[in-house]
Amino acid sequence: MNNYLDKAISLAQMVEGQTGLNPPVGAVIVKNGRIIGMGAHLKQGERHAEIQAIDMAGPEQVVGATIYVSLEPCSHFGKTPPCAKRIIDTGISHVVYAARDITLPATGHQMMERAGVKVTYRPHPVAEQLYASFFKSKQLERPIVTVKVSASLDGKQATDHFESQWITNPSVKEDVFKLRHEHDAIITGSGTLKYDNPSLTVRLEEGRHPVRVILTRSGQIDWKSNMFHDGYGPIIIYTENHSLQSTCSNVEVVCLDNCNVDSVLKDLYLKGFGRVLVEAGPKVTSQFLSSKLITHFILYLAPKLIGGQGLNQFYQTESVFKLSDTHQFEIVETSLIDTNVKILMKRK
Amino acid sequence: MNNYLDKAISLAQMVEGQTGLNPPVGAVIVKNGRIIGMGAHLKQGERHAEIQAIDMAGPEQVVGATIYVSLEPCSHFGKTPPCAKRIIDTGISHVVYAARDITLPATGHQMMERAGVKVTYRPHPVAEQLYASFFKSKQLERPIVTVKVSASLDGKQATDHFESQWITNPSVKEDVFKLRHEHDAIITGSGTLKYDNPSLTVRLEEGRHPVRVILTRSGQIDWKSNMFHDGYGPIIIYTENHSLQSTCSNVEVVCLDNCNVDSVLKDLYLKGFGRVLVEAGPKVTSQFLSSKLITHFILYLAPKLIGGQGLNQFYQTESVFKLSDTHQFEIVETSLIDTNVKILMKRK
Repeated sequence: MNNYLDKAISLAQMVEGQTGLNPPVGAVIVKNGRIIGMGAHLKQGERHAEIQAIDMAGPEQVVGATIYVSLEPCSHFGKTPPCAKRIIDTGISHVVYAARDITLPATGHQMMERAGVKVTYRPHPVAEQLYASFFKSKQLERPIVTVKVSASLDGKQATDHFESQWITNPSVKEDVFKLRHEHDAIITGSGTLKYDNPSLTVRLEEGRHPVRVILTRSGQIDWKSNMFHDGYGPIIIYTENHSLQSTCSNVEVVCLDNCNVDSVLKDLYLKGFGRVLVEAGPKVTSQFLSSKLITHFILYLAPKLIGGQGLNQFYQTESVFKLSDTHQFEIVETSLIDTNVKILMKRK
Repeated sequence: MNNYLDKAISLAQMVEGQTGLNPPVGAVIVKNGRIIGMGAHLKQGERHAEIQAIDMAGPEQVVGATIYVSLEPCSHFGKTPPCAKRIIDTGISHVVYAARDITLPATGHQMMERAGVKVTYRPHPVAEQLYASFFKSKQLERPIVTVKVSASLDGKQATDHFESQWITNPSVKEDVFKLRHEHDAIITGSGTLKYDNPSLTVRLEEGRHPVRVILTRSGQIDWKSNMFHDGYGPIIIYTENHSLQSTCSNVEVVCLDNCNVDSVLKDLYLKGFGRVLVEAGPKVTSQFLSSKLITHFILYLAPKLIGGQGLNQFYQTESVFKLSDTHQFEIVETSLIDTNVKILMKRK
């Protein structure tokens, strides 16, 4: 029954967004048609899913059991010993996994098979989807990047008078809180800080507030903005202005020679951010949407027409491209959020 | 975020059908917006979900955390000490649960609240649905009973010549395997044994074979039937015939004065069976469908018309009832299984 592999993948999905630079992984151990252990990787540096599940089942029970894992067990010594070795040592007789870890040179599959454990790779579309962006991120050494835009039907984030509250409905706001909760950091621009003065927090029960990241090449920052005084954790400012100094203890200023998308993402990855969300005005949004480094694009559309000259169209570029050279996305899912439409896309 | 409660309920659903007379329960422990422990009750007599999750999180982490549980934590000493006490002792500061355990006199809610723990009862429709039949079962001391019927559009399980293989399609068969896996026992009649000679096993990877139960008032049993020789675990025969003796080591014969639905279910509950599935011919099926003790009715309909005189109509009664006195069901869900329809109903 494929059922157990589905369950392992569900466990992985439950911890998506809380595993830093590690992938979310779930594991279920089965013996005599009964689940005897379950686990998920809860935090970077802590026990892996397989180990959690083995610990729950106990050393006697696991002998001869089958473990279903959302991702191929690791075979390398990282912050924890390799899961493949632990699986071999416990006497688990069969390993079924749903996705190959293409980022590692040596594979757990081979290691376990050589030790006499039966190993089955059973590709699963949900797991493939779950890990695709993670693998890309790890190979590029850049975080998984989701760009979020709320706009009118005519592609505007605000009127020409910068009125933007609220284009979309309250249910979209709730959905955005969940989205923020699943990311380690939110990137915005100094323009959004100036015009919207947002908090970019997660107003949900036990929501986790991502670190807030502000991009300002020139270094023009309004230190009176709410964000600097609301007490919701650290803030990082990226700038090209060498004289910009932080005036608050929770604010780190990082000066880069070129404060472009790639160098910001590279630095964030080195700092340990695995998933970042871009919620910004047209300028920063357009920079990210133009970049091949973004992984997902979420567009919330309100059934309104804003009109005007389009000062706040969410996508603006200096160059004019041929139609065949325009950026393409693949629609993963569309859903109705109350009266608005949510379109989840991935970069083609 | 209600999200965590949903996750606790998902964990409970993963172990549905493997917890005997105990309810399936899931638990998730959260601290600083991050899951730090997960658990599910895996087997009657073993650790409860809350304890599994606490053990995963560890004694230091749980202090000040919130635990989300699909069912109110218990406050009584059963085969394990009360979870409410363990929660108090560990220093968890907030408990959120989705369903009240109406079968217990004392409540964990009160016990924990008196000890200074914040306790929130947050009713959840999925959890209510999950536990409704469990509570009924526990109060009546009878198992949760699902009757499964595969029939033609004109309500027949077989032609008048007893031809029944196969009315429904192969995908239905697969679905029935999953259904069997989620039950502790399958009840059938001696007629089905005679005409179909079924194995009633679970042909799925790591499927769990339920105990097979045969009803035969007269005690007429064909000992050559496949079931007695396939090696798939124990069989129980209920009869009113005092001279019926088992000829196989894996077969237990239980003689009852009145081998009716109620007395059979009562005995099965005492033996520890929490969920039973009825898969039988018209006679046994009709007896169960007439009984108020059944909880669910699953009807697989093939788009065929069988005709004939209706010797094998799945529901037949001796009495003729007024239309207003006929048995009513509530449709919970309909789905398409390949070319067939599956209708899941509960007893009104």
